[in-house]
Amino acid sequence: MLTLSLIGIGCGDPAQLTRAAIGTINAADLVLIPRKGIAKSDLADLRRTICADVLTSDKTRIAEFDLPVRDAAEADYRKGVDDWHDAVAATWSQTIADHLGSDGRIALLIWGDPSLYDSSLRIARRLDPLPDIEVVPGITSIQALCAAHALPLNDIGEPFLVTTGRRLLEGGWPQGVDTVVVMLDGGTAFQSLDPEGLHIWWGAYLGMPDQIIMSGALAEAGARIVAARQDARARHGWIMDSYILKRRP
Amino acid sequence: MLTLSLIGIGCGDPAQLTRAAIGTINAADLVLIPRKGIAKSDLADLRRTICADVLTSDKTRIAEFDLPVRDAAEADYRKGVDDWHDAVAATWSQTIADHLGSDGRIALLIWGDPSLYDSSLRIARRLDPLPDIEVVPGITSIQALCAAHALPLNDIGEPFLVTTGRRLLEGGWPQGVDTVVVMLDGGTAFQSLDPEGLHIWWGAYLGMPDQIIMSGALAEAGARIVAARQDARARHGWIMDSYILKRRP
Ligand SMILES: C[S@@+](CC[C@H](N)C(=O)[O-])C[C@H]1O[C@@H](n2cnc3c(N)ncnc32)[C@H](O)[C@@H]1O
Ligand SMILES: C[S@@+](CC[C@H](N)C(=O)[O-])C[C@H]1O[C@@H](n2cnc3c(N)ncnc32)[C@H](O)[C@@H]1O
Repeated sequence: MLTLSLIGIGCGDPAQLTRAAIGTINAADLVLIPRKGIAKSDLADLRRTICADVLTSDKTRIAEFDLPVRDAAEADYRKGVDDWHDAVAATWSQTIADHLGSDGRIALLIWGDPSLYDSSLRIARRLDPLPDIEVVPGITSIQALCAAHALPLNDIGEPFLVTTGRRLLEGGWPQGVDTVVVMLDGGTAFQSLDPEGLHIWWGAYLGMPDQIIMSGALAEAGARIVAARQDARARHGWIMDSYILKRRP
Repeated sequence: MLTLSLIGIGCGDPAQLTRAAIGTINAADLVLIPRKGIAKSDLADLRRTICADVLTSDKTRIAEFDLPVRDAAEADYRKGVDDWHDAVAATWSQTIADHLGSDGRIALLIWGDPSLYDSSLRIARRLDPLPDIEVVPGITSIQALCAAHALPLNDIGEPFLVTTGRRLLEGGWPQGVDTVVVMLDGGTAFQSLDPEGLHIWWGAYLGMPDQIIMSGALAEAGARIVAARQDARARHGWIMDSYILKRRP
């Protein structure tokens, strides 16, 4: 009776929207727009702009709602995430019940692609009642990063690893690969590596008007990136960035 | 004077086209459509259909051309690829010179995303004269695979590896990851792994009318997938498939 579409909207540039995303937004009875805490209201704004921009159906309603905050006091990280997913699911269920009832099509706009470092699929599986769940793929920040640098992600026939800043910090250069994509880095974990033989391709606010990209041998570009990142973060109040490292490219 | 846009068109479903892709195709003076050998004329057809479907500008010309064939007799794999890239670049340069001259915008439609297991960026850098090169990201087969299965690619905060069938066959389960994406597998390399504790999510012809997906514990689903793959390949004369393996999901 309820269908929930998780719709990837790309990672900042509304031109990254696919025809399927636009069609699915317009087919929805209800579009859910979560307001996230922190200074990321720019991102809620972008979701609002996208809706206004692509919605041609006037039967589609839009519901904004506040997300619950994760309990930072919970010592067990897994349990903290688990409880938080339950709480978010309860908020979604309530918002759906309030605005739609038990029948209709719901659209949730997801940053980038719903399958990449995003919890919405896991949260959706906790909804009560459980809707049919459908995923519309979107352009990820990895692709936006490669496109901005006109960089082939993999070497010919070679593998690559996608990981987080925390993992890079804890584990150093991963075994068995010469290409590493780093996301979710709250800092500049690349500084913990021996830069010898490493190259970096970095991007912040990819696809947005303030996009910044930098690249070069890590030994030389690293410090430039650290400075640019600090500066940009101070100006915006927030930053979203990712980077690719290659060994002997 | 020349600008070459490598445009990701998604991996089979024309609804995966982004607004940027459609805009860039329409801004082109010349669209290049390579005819690939093997029984993949279905794919050249798709590119033709996409052009016909999205082109609203009547000043855009379309040029189809045959790609040179790679020299299978060359014993040195790297050199074989290198020579082939040179030959392809020469064909592009010639087609551009014939149809456009030395000034204008060229669009090349790329399967999936131009940065993922695709040589067009490397070939473009060999063009003479060298054009400005621009990349428009597209939906990859990895995202189409995850979307079809409504599967989160990574576990929370965990890394994943993207690799090829050949690598999996040669190296076994890669170190340090519990999630592996396998592309470019000419066979069923997953059969070489001990299936204990492994799950698989497989998809062929993703995004196309004949899309097939299957999943399950590898010990049980593996044989089903091998049979389905063999059958589908016999029926179509070709197959494009990829899969995700997870350990103890
Ligand atoms: C929670 S993950 C979401 C990823 C998203 N689902 C995707 O497909 O890209 C957020 C991380 O994605 C990366 N990211 C997202 N948008 C970005 C952008 N516009 N520029 C640079 N990095 C971005 C950053 O590494 C950030 O820490
Ligand atoms: C040369 S690579 C090109 C990848 C492409 N650039 C992308 O972004 O997906 C070809 C491989 O991509 C995967 N692939 C591409 N299209 C696919 C589809 N429609 N269904 C399943 N796998 C696909 C297969 O693993 C295939 O061997």
